[in-house]
Amino acid sequence: MKEQLMKMLDERKDEMIQIRRYLHEYPELSFKEEKTAQYIADFYKGKDVDIQTNVGNGYGIIVTIKGAKPGKTIGLRADFDALPIVEEADVPFKSKNEGVMHACGHDGHTAYLLILADCLIQLKSELSGTIKIIHQHAEEVPPGGAKSIVESGLLDDLDEVFGIHLLPIAPAGMVGYNKGYAFNGRAYMKLKVQGRGGHGSSPHLANDAIVAGAHFVTAIQTIISRRLSPFSIGVITIGSFDGAGIFNVIKDSVELEGDIRYMTTETKEIIEREIIRMVKGLEEEFDVECDLTYTPDYPPLYNNPELTEKVANALKNANVKEITEVKEVPPMAPSEDFAYYAEKFPACFFYIGCTPKGVEKPYFNHHPKFDIDEDSLLVAAKAVGQVVCSLQE
Amino acid sequence: MKEQLMKMLDERKDEMIQIRRYLHEYPELSFKEEKTAQYIADFYKGKDVDIQTNVGNGYGIIVTIKGAKPGKTIGLRADFDALPIVEEADVPFKSKNEGVMHACGHDGHTAYLLILADCLIQLKSELSGTIKIIHQHAEEVPPGGAKSIVESGLLDDLDEVFGIHLLPIAPAGMVGYNKGYAFNGRAYMKLKVQGRGGHGSSPHLANDAIVAGAHFVTAIQTIISRRLSPFSIGVITIGSFDGAGIFNVIKDSVELEGDIRYMTTETKEIIEREIIRMVKGLEEEFDVECDLTYTPDYPPLYNNPELTEKVANALKNANVKEITEVKEVPPMAPSEDFAYYAEKFPACFFYIGCTPKGVEKPYFNHHPKFDIDEDSLLVAAKAVGQVVCSLQE
Amino acid sequence: MKEQLMKMLDERKDEMIQIRRYLHEYPELSFKEEKTAQYIADFYKGKDVDIQTNVGNGYGIIVTIKGAKPGKTIGLRADFDALPIVEEADVPFKSKNEGVMHACGHDGHTAYLLILADCLIQLKSELSGTIKIIHQHAEEVPPGGAKSIVESGLLDDLDEVFGIHLLPIAPAGMVGYNKGYAFNGRAYMKLKVQGRGGHGSSPHLANDAIVAGAHFVTAIQTIISRRLSPFSIGVITIGSFDGAGIFNVIKDSVELEGDIRYMTTETKEIIEREIIRMVKGLEEEFDVECDLTYTPDYPPLYNNPELTEKVANALKNANVKEITEVKEVPPMAPSEDFAYYAEKFPACFFYIGCTPKGVEKPYFNHHPKFDIDEDSLLVAAKAVGQVVCSLQE
Amino acid sequence: MKEQLMKMLDERKDEMIQIRRYLHEYPELSFKEEKTAQYIADFYKGKDVDIQTNVGNGYGIIVTIKGAKPGKTIGLRADFDALPIVEEADVPFKSKNEGVMHACGHDGHTAYLLILADCLIQLKSELSGTIKIIHQHAEEVPPGGAKSIVESGLLDDLDEVFGIHLLPIAPAGMVGYNKGYAFNGRAYMKLKVQGRGGHGSSPHLANDAIVAGAHFVTAIQTIISRRLSPFSIGVITIGSFDGAGIFNVIKDSVELEGDIRYMTTETKEIIEREIIRMVKGLEEEFDVECDLTYTPDYPPLYNNPELTEKVANALKNANVKEITEVKEVPPMAPSEDFAYYAEKFPACFFYIGCTPKGVEKPYFNHHPKFDIDEDSLLVAAKAVGQVVCSLQE
Repeated sequence: MKEQLMKMLDERKDEMIQIRRYLHEYPELSFKEEKTAQYIADFYKGKDVDIQTNVGNGYGIIVTIKGAKPGKTIGLRADFDALPIVEEADVPFKSKNEGVMHACGHDGHTAYLLILADCLIQLKSELSGTIKIIHQHAEEVPPGGAKSIVESGLLDDLDEVFGIHLLPIAPAGMVGYNKGYAFNGRAYMKLKVQGRGGHGSSPHLANDAIVAGAHFVTAIQTIISRRLSPFSIGVITIGSFDGAGIFNVIKDSVELEGDIRYMTTETKEIIEREIIRMVKGLEEEFDVECDLTYTPDYPPLYNNPELTEKVANALKNANVKEITEVKEVPPMAPSEDFAYYAEKFPACFFYIGCTPKGVEKPYFNHHPKFDIDEDSLLVAAKAVGQVVCSLQE
Repeated sequence: MKEQLMKMLDERKDEMIQIRRYLHEYPELSFKEEKTAQYIADFYKGKDVDIQTNVGNGYGIIVTIKGAKPGKTIGLRADFDALPIVEEADVPFKSKNEGVMHACGHDGHTAYLLILADCLIQLKSELSGTIKIIHQHAEEVPPGGAKSIVESGLLDDLDEVFGIHLLPIAPAGMVGYNKGYAFNGRAYMKLKVQGRGGHGSSPHLANDAIVAGAHFVTAIQTIISRRLSPFSIGVITIGSFDGAGIFNVIKDSVELEGDIRYMTTETKEIIEREIIRMVKGLEEEFDVECDLTYTPDYPPLYNNPELTEKVANALKNANVKEITEVKEVPPMAPSEDFAYYAEKFPACFFYIGCTPKGVEKPYFNHHPKFDIDEDSLLVAAKAVGQVVCSLQE
Repeated sequence: MKEQLMKMLDERKDEMIQIRRYLHEYPELSFKEEKTAQYIADFYKGKDVDIQTNVGNGYGIIVTIKGAKPGKTIGLRADFDALPIVEEADVPFKSKNEGVMHACGHDGHTAYLLILADCLIQLKSELSGTIKIIHQHAEEVPPGGAKSIVESGLLDDLDEVFGIHLLPIAPAGMVGYNKGYAFNGRAYMKLKVQGRGGHGSSPHLANDAIVAGAHFVTAIQTIISRRLSPFSIGVITIGSFDGAGIFNVIKDSVELEGDIRYMTTETKEIIEREIIRMVKGLEEEFDVECDLTYTPDYPPLYNNPELTEKVANALKNANVKEITEVKEVPPMAPSEDFAYYAEKFPACFFYIGCTPKGVEKPYFNHHPKFDIDEDSLLVAAKAVGQVVCSLQE
Repeated sequence: MKEQLMKMLDERKDEMIQIRRYLHEYPELSFKEEKTAQYIADFYKGKDVDIQTNVGNGYGIIVTIKGAKPGKTIGLRADFDALPIVEEADVPFKSKNEGVMHACGHDGHTAYLLILADCLIQLKSELSGTIKIIHQHAEEVPPGGAKSIVESGLLDDLDEVFGIHLLPIAPAGMVGYNKGYAFNGRAYMKLKVQGRGGHGSSPHLANDAIVAGAHFVTAIQTIISRRLSPFSIGVITIGSFDGAGIFNVIKDSVELEGDIRYMTTETKEIIEREIIRMVKGLEEEFDVECDLTYTPDYPPLYNNPELTEKVANALKNANVKEITEVKEVPPMAPSEDFAYYAEKFPACFFYIGCTPKGVEKPYFNHHPKFDIDEDSLLVAAKAVGQVVCSLQE
């Protein structure tokens, strides 16, 4: 089946690129991907699959391909939302929705997966087990689409789940993988520190919220420096300290907002516990009232090491000429809601290099000039196809 | 002459109140007291005095009354600007300039001094020396009017200078005085802390201005706690910490504004020197660029102790029935630009109690419901009159 | 009686000096003044007085002189303990107890009061009311002698109480007084911060007590800078931060000791409350266990303003040639356990200037070269004698 | 040659154990390993090698084995110093030097390498290239022996260098490796903060070194939390804050000592630069004088990734029954002066598991009850032997 699949993918390379370009021209923001979802649903019309739309908290779609032979149930996920960015890339298929752009490659993810799914549908008679194609909405904006899709129960029978991400800073042909923690988890915090206003010349009649807020900012640095293992990855950024006021009036309250990152569940828990502790300590120490909102969103993404080892070996031994290199890469600072699937099922999320041809310094994901080498779509399709086939063996 | 003067003032008590009410109805903001100044100038029209208008950086007026006999040159100062406050006092002569209010009693200061000046003009033949009546604009807003009036040179020949302030929290009939430092000096600071922005997950690629700003706020507390004598009076209030931003973006810069108070020139200098030192230290410590604006405005107001002793004795021995009590009072937290006269000349600035009749908890100066007992205008006139006469002796 | 008393004191000036020199040669440490107390008791032997020894928690002595006429009961207090200082003053009557020195003038206090008491005993027939002479032990070392003498109940009938202090930085002949708060109150604190030790390379497995202790030192600065009125006097000094350890071992605990000063009971309470609050906050914030000892000892010394006014007037009008100046002086930074008498009874504690003759820069109290002008003993005796007499009127 | 070598090692397993036990009984402290060095030198007596003793700053020994055939020059290093620990392990060959113990396994390192060296000497005729056996003194105490041995120039012709460490927490039979940074680098700091002493009640006349020191401790937390990449490994521990003093005396100076760890040269440089910056900032901010000693000692240990890959593959394909597992392990918190060799030459330092038989919770290196499974000596010898042979191919 593997050879057949590779050959079918070769033949449909142009179609992948077409689809990707079409989606690129009509990007839609997270949770608003109505037309994109319709386009995907239309693609499957008349094909011999189960399709479920409006899954989860948005336009999620699950397409179920039942193989003729018994076997595992495998999930393949591609996200399809775009970003609020004005495209600056100089391409003929530039975004036609002003201010919205597929600057993270989700158009490519969807394009390759549609074609791969179609090929697998055609190979159903030879397929062992079930493939669930997960077309996911809203990856870019918390709470994301993944959590609700997992909670829908429609994936409860998955044995394994896979996803990829296009990565322009890696060369086309390279597949990157990472055993264990791969993407940071993330939390959002908002802290209102309520003191009591007063005249600048009489601090004893007031309770200076700026002084209390400043102490908090200083104190939480020790969470990173003294509470985490030096081998752990964690960040607390207070990005906003809103204490604007009048120079000679003691500020009654300040509002802080922050971003927390962590690479493991253990680090997540330490930071959350310590921030809560420090807020309580601040209330006591400075006699202020604190109102803390602490909202973890995407968890750290954990690639099952054994499964990832299998994937890496499958790819290294794939003998696919488009896959020129398979290598382990370090974890990444950003967050990715594929993590929710990986929390529940053995999962592997890997990277498809896609530096555009002739470009030395490719733009990062989320850059207005983000671009890819479209040949990488075939790499993605073949890599995931290889993984699916290898699991059949 | 003293008895004559007291009698004349008794007769013109109602006129004082009329003038005060008129001014109360037509308050004008600092540096915009055009009509008030005109009203004052008109008052002196046809009287046998020298009058100089538009003195200093605004509508200041100096009226020179030359006595027939030789003697000292004495300054008497009353300020005439009002505040940007919507009056809430329930009086028939409520402000007719919406949003502007004589909430600090400068209407009363001007009213009593006009009448006192007129009486002194009439007594010129018996008067020793020269009286310079200083009708001062813009006391409420730095840089104030006093500094520029002093700098005009028109007062260079003063031997002594006096001023009073109406004080509703002291009972009508009471005159309060204070030997030495009486009102706080004041400075304004603005500090821009320039770091470098970046993504919240990558602090090492940025330079967090919020963290640096928070350290500054914490560090400067030690100026008050460890650099000043416990017997000194000093305050540093950072009233504004403008660091509002996006929760997951490291803030590139923050802007702090603050108010500094001090009761002596020595304390003024210590605080200024230490803030400058700490800003330099912050630049080094956190590798940020700081832009500090540090502007002392009104100096501490220093009452010449010997002169104040004389004033106190003159008033204690005055035998004026309206003056029921003469007592020493502690220094005050606010600032007053009479301090500029007192920097240059032996000066005494004292308080005239004016709790409104039947009121138990009088409103402070600057309160929208600020009110006075108008009988206190006569107390003011007689007290200052007594001082002038006693200096003749 | 007043003139008679003054004359008697004149005659016994040399005797005062002799006594003072004797005591100076045989100084004894606080709570160990056995021989000094014996000397004092011997002085009163055979005189017509009630004498009570071993009063309070040491060698305190109360001598009761009952006047023939009815009247108030007045306390006069002099302390008699010395300091653990090696005398460096070049005087013929240098300390013979190596390492102990009357470096605070208590020898002089006792000398003048013995003679004054003897004179008053001789004038009993003319005396109205009762004089209680309080010879107090252990002023220099907390908990001091005063508290326990007050608690003995032997003074419960006092109407007023007086004390003086020799002050070399004021000229001989000067008497200084202060209405209201005059000496700082004082508290001692010890704080053990218990974290958890560990290897320097693994902070997450330990809980760094040095980091927590440092935060505490920084945070308490705000008690002085933001919790006290700028017009209040308060100091917190952490004089000891015992965190010595091994460079690469995380410190399990640190011990801080500090000294707290305040001029009013209100300030005392604010500082104590806020330190307790901050210790609680620290426990929460850094997950440490804190053991705080907080022991107020001498309270602020408060001179009853009306009584002090009386004393000042009595001295100003005394017509005693040795008293050349009577003036108000600012409050003092040190502490004095006369404060305990003043907590319970209307009290006045004043200063007797005693700059040694020909000395321009006199040494402070507690200096190894401390010295006095012995003429000031007569000034002290006459000043207190005047006060006693004026209260008879 | 490989098979021959393996066989020879098998035959000399007991001898390795004997040597190890002998060394274990006679441990010597770093830089004092006179007898140990003699023992080693004696071992080579009469063998066909070049031997150089007293290499570097101590008892270092380099033994050069020249193969008959041309080839690379390879270094094999074993350290031989012991620790100042009272042995608590219950073994028949317990330390006979009270208070000194081979608690880090260096006895084992030396034992296996002596036998391996001897076998290689015997195989000289078949050996390609040169083997330099590095018997290193003083690994445990900075500045260590490695640096000076490298600086001796005697190793300048090395193409590659290898070392191993016995690791009781890994099972016997396991070989662990790590591509890239493997052990932390380390620096020592001492900071004297010089303020100015004074009386606790008068902070303005002093300059409180405890307050300045506390600010420093707080400020440097931000080096870890904001200056390092979250993916970097760095620690700053202030293990000693020597500020013990008298509670009511303002401390004139404090002395801090600290331990700094980092996994890369980049992190080393950032921390050093930022600590120096913060010390300068502290001087400015608090007007103190600082005396900073900052001494980096062992650098981070960097395993050449390509060479380590080769080693791992050689071991995985070794077909040696004693090597039951070859796996990648994470970097380690401690420091190791093998890093100096690795700074200059392509290097690989790997782990030999040695959990004692029947023990579930083995003691860490440096524990008084540290013990090993002596079978691991053969594993070590065979593993390093395999590496040497594989490099011949």
